[in-house]
Amino acid sequence: MIKEAVYHRPGNNFAYAYDSETIHIRLRTKKEDMRRVSLIHGDPYIWKKGEWQTEEKPMEKTGSDELFDYWFTSLQPPYRRLRYSFKLESEKETAVFTEKGFFTEAPLDEIDYHFCFPFLNSADVFKAPQWVKDTVWYQIFPERFGNGDPSLNPEGTLPWGSEAPKQDSFFGGDFQGVMDHLDYLTQLGISGIYFTPIFKAHSNHKYDTTDYMEIDPQFGDKETFRKLVKACHEKGIRVMLDAVFNHSGFYFAPFQDVLKRGKNSPYSEWFHLWEDKVSTTPSPNYDAFAFESYMPKLNTENPEVKQYLLDVARYWIEEFDIDGWRLDVANEVDHSFWREFRRTVKEIKPDAYILGEIWHDSMPWLQGDQFDAVMNYPFTNAVIHFFAKRNISLTRFKHQLAHVQHMYPAPVNEVSFNLLGSHDTPRVLTYVEEHKPTAKLMYLFQMSYEGTPCIYYGDEIGMTGGEDPGCRKCMVWEENEQDQELFVFLQNMISLRKTEPAFGSGGSFQFMDYGEELLAYEKRSDEQRLLFFINPSDQSKKAEASARRSIERDENSTVH
Amino acid sequence: MIKEAVYHRPGNNFAYAYDSETIHIRLRTKKEDMRRVSLIHGDPYIWKKGEWQTEEKPMEKTGSDELFDYWFTSLQPPYRRLRYSFKLESEKETAVFTEKGFFTEAPLDEIDYHFCFPFLNSADVFKAPQWVKDTVWYQIFPERFGNGDPSLNPEGTLPWGSEAPKQDSFFGGDFQGVMDHLDYLTQLGISGIYFTPIFKAHSNHKYDTTDYMEIDPQFGDKETFRKLVKACHEKGIRVMLDAVFNHSGFYFAPFQDVLKRGKNSPYSEWFHLWEDKVSTTPSPNYDAFAFESYMPKLNTENPEVKQYLLDVARYWIEEFDIDGWRLDVANEVDHSFWREFRRTVKEIKPDAYILGEIWHDSMPWLQGDQFDAVMNYPFTNAVIHFFAKRNISLTRFKHQLAHVQHMYPAPVNEVSFNLLGSHDTPRVLTYVEEHKPTAKLMYLFQMSYEGTPCIYYGDEIGMTGGEDPGCRKCMVWEENEQDQELFVFLQNMISLRKTEPAFGSGGSFQFMDYGEELLAYEKRSDEQRLLFFINPSDQSKKAEASARRSIERDENSTVH
Repeated sequence: MIKEAVYHRPGNNFAYAYDSETIHIRLRTKKEDMRRVSLIHGDPYIWKKGEWQTEEKPMEKTGSDELFDYWFTSLQPPYRRLRYSFKLESEKETAVFTEKGFFTEAPLDEIDYHFCFPFLNSADVFKAPQWVKDTVWYQIFPERFGNGDPSLNPEGTLPWGSEAPKQDSFFGGDFQGVMDHLDYLTQLGISGIYFTPIFKAHSNHKYDTTDYMEIDPQFGDKETFRKLVKACHEKGIRVMLDAVFNHSGFYFAPFQDVLKRGKNSPYSEWFHLWEDKVSTTPSPNYDAFAFESYMPKLNTENPEVKQYLLDVARYWIEEFDIDGWRLDVANEVDHSFWREFRRTVKEIKPDAYILGEIWHDSMPWLQGDQFDAVMNYPFTNAVIHFFAKRNISLTRFKHQLAHVQHMYPAPVNEVSFNLLGSHDTPRVLTYVEEHKPTAKLMYLFQMSYEGTPCIYYGDEIGMTGGEDPGCRKCMVWEENEQDQELFVFLQNMISLRKTEPAFGSGGSFQFMDYGEELLAYEKRSDEQRLLFFINPSDQSKKAEASARRSIERDENSTVH
Repeated sequence: MIKEAVYHRPGNNFAYAYDSETIHIRLRTKKEDMRRVSLIHGDPYIWKKGEWQTEEKPMEKTGSDELFDYWFTSLQPPYRRLRYSFKLESEKETAVFTEKGFFTEAPLDEIDYHFCFPFLNSADVFKAPQWVKDTVWYQIFPERFGNGDPSLNPEGTLPWGSEAPKQDSFFGGDFQGVMDHLDYLTQLGISGIYFTPIFKAHSNHKYDTTDYMEIDPQFGDKETFRKLVKACHEKGIRVMLDAVFNHSGFYFAPFQDVLKRGKNSPYSEWFHLWEDKVSTTPSPNYDAFAFESYMPKLNTENPEVKQYLLDVARYWIEEFDIDGWRLDVANEVDHSFWREFRRTVKEIKPDAYILGEIWHDSMPWLQGDQFDAVMNYPFTNAVIHFFAKRNISLTRFKHQLAHVQHMYPAPVNEVSFNLLGSHDTPRVLTYVEEHKPTAKLMYLFQMSYEGTPCIYYGDEIGMTGGEDPGCRKCMVWEENEQDQELFVFLQNMISLRKTEPAFGSGGSFQFMDYGEELLAYEKRSDEQRLLFFINPSDQSKKAEASARRSIERDENSTVH
């Protein structure tokens, strides 16, 4: 038994409240080291004759990555208190793993040996909004979705789709253009729109905010936006906006003042200036996103800045009833700010969705006091590498996903934002070199995986495009240029999430082992068990599915 | 190389901001597996020709426990951003450990492989009050320290020290009794008093609060308390009170109302009632501490209760200028409550000390948003078992302490509350069967260890006593009955913390290896290096100390 590989620490993804009655416990062990793992558990205050009273519950192996197996169990302690240790059985050895190390038998004379979940207080339960896990998102880059009001066209606007977009092209996409096509979106079946930034800015992508309280005039005015949100809600579509709070745009008035007056500006504390005089060359002498002089980092510890940004967070919910915030470069802003942000947002709209853009391990932001979820880039990468680039094996693909699955608590995974591409990456169809059958497998996998899937506008009709600006072409509205067959395929996938609960958020996901050539997994609920067999190759494969394995698992997980 | 034993996850004790410029990074590896560990690190945005630019810094092995070695380094990234991986060198193999697993060489083509400390925002720096690490605490159980105002004696008060205390004895200790002896405390040299509860209650220990806004009349009134705090402050002594917020006393008015009226009481939501009618037998039909009907658990999620308790937290600081709160059964109260508690307390007094009573791994409470520290019971246990009970080896003792040291971030360890005994345990001298030389070694170790030591009243003059009520005897004030020699010894130990910076909080602690029979450690600062050799046996031992090892360590930690 490799004891050094055994890991558990209460909190995070290892011991957490799933709901106000249920505690989830996970354990990590060296791969294929343990034959059996059980949880020894009890109420800390139930003793008989100087001995702590415990029960034993088998744990289920829920996945493996390259080096480790992961074990899981769920329980509902009658008094909402729990002490526990793990009984480990390898081929040759049995050991008990406690907070104080390993023992040959569970030490029951003192409670201090054992891991502690002191009390399940409902206030501490991670509560992501219920609606998110049943939502299929659709990402809209507003400048390129539809030009519904040419009167708003900025100077130099090009005719819609008349040429390949450049970094600085304008095609005049606007809110009216979105409203004109809401029926199209309803037909596709999506239930949430994620808009990249809509606030006043200079560029076409609007990530360089100049006024967080104003709509960019090329998209429309506040009345149009209000109408848009209302129209979406009437069709059962939620609306999420993009907040760029890490840095402002170069033309943000406070930064312009600082540029002029340096430390004498009343806004000098709004940024992180290094010297009295502000200079942008050769590289900025102030904190910036990366070393980009045009993206000055906001000082979110300054009470004025904090107030301003929290007002922004509040304003767009209170006034326009938006349903969520996606937070750009969320990892570089301080945790304290995000805690206040969450309190502010959830106070007005308790079921608003807070989604962070973080590419790396995001556990510190996902403890219930900051974000509901993060953009699931590890998912994106694994799917792209396995299906599209074909440069990782099936085993490695499964390891990567199992790793992410076991990295966060279940309530986080349930609302994880699973994207295959965005305005920052090549489009799916371009990734697969326009091999449509592969793209379909990717969509099937995305739609049936746990979490909340997102479609990048136009992917559903077979649009192509490489890295920015290629992936930001104007939406194609001529029906004969749309891939209708792909549209119907995606429509069906989305529809299955609604008609077959286990296909979507109603089913729990688990890989099955059908060798190196067939990606097999199941989604199961209490009522349903769906088996998926995906053959990513050109050759046909034969798979035989049996219910037996499932029944065994059932027995295993209920005998206690 | 046992890769499965290698552990690092950003956050917690593994990667944290030490101050607004410094990041600490730790790594865990299998014991004696690695010859050398280095940190590969760089700013995430500095690239040349498609390659991320990194530096390498050797890490120092700062300790070992039974299964693992712990490695450490500290760095100040110029732009406050950091990506990093670990280069591991075992006898036979070299590997690079990244967030995405192991590689033979550091993958420098994509930043996503590497662990991320996205930005060192000062708002997220764990800030325990500066004064705490230089404080020597003195725990007073007010009923038993001094009876200075007999007019306050409750009915049935026994003459001071006239008999061994029973569970329900009263001896009339009060605030005047403390004030009468402040000079004594100053002479001893302590700089903080931790009072067990002083609020209105029924018992002699006052853990059964009936009114959190009132002083128990047997101790004095609010004016006396105000005078006491002022007098302490004038002598440079801080004052910490004990808050029992997990549960109220049985005679707390809201609970009495609930007892009478059950769910019809306006206070029914102040507790966790299971049924309409409240009953205390055979066991309580409401949530309680353990199953004690007389300690009903408070519903800290109820806004009224929350407001009441936060008002309490605020009131005693605002009105009486107390310096800290020690939180009883802190682990069973919800994290949300403690977050609000911290905000409330720190808003009024930013350098107030918040100390949780938690016996198990406390990482979830020590992330900067809740407590400054916890009571260091693992320290207590290790010292008692090694020095007093002699039932663990020196190696095991060192392992246990190294384990705790590496379990929390350094800023937490610096203000950890290190006690050897309390009103809930036998006294030190009783533990060692009155073998004074051993008690002295324990005090020496406690006073020179990292963290903030606490003396239980009377221990300094050689008082004895077993478990409660034995350990709660009346303080002995007759000089001829006090062990003056022990008093002077402790006085010297306390004084050394002030005169020799490295002896106290100015020195960093590290065990040295002088075999199984000699406990050796060093405390070092930039200016000083103190070597400690403790021989816990009856036989004399010879130790030879050399400065060479230290110089090697110096070289090792600066070559990069």
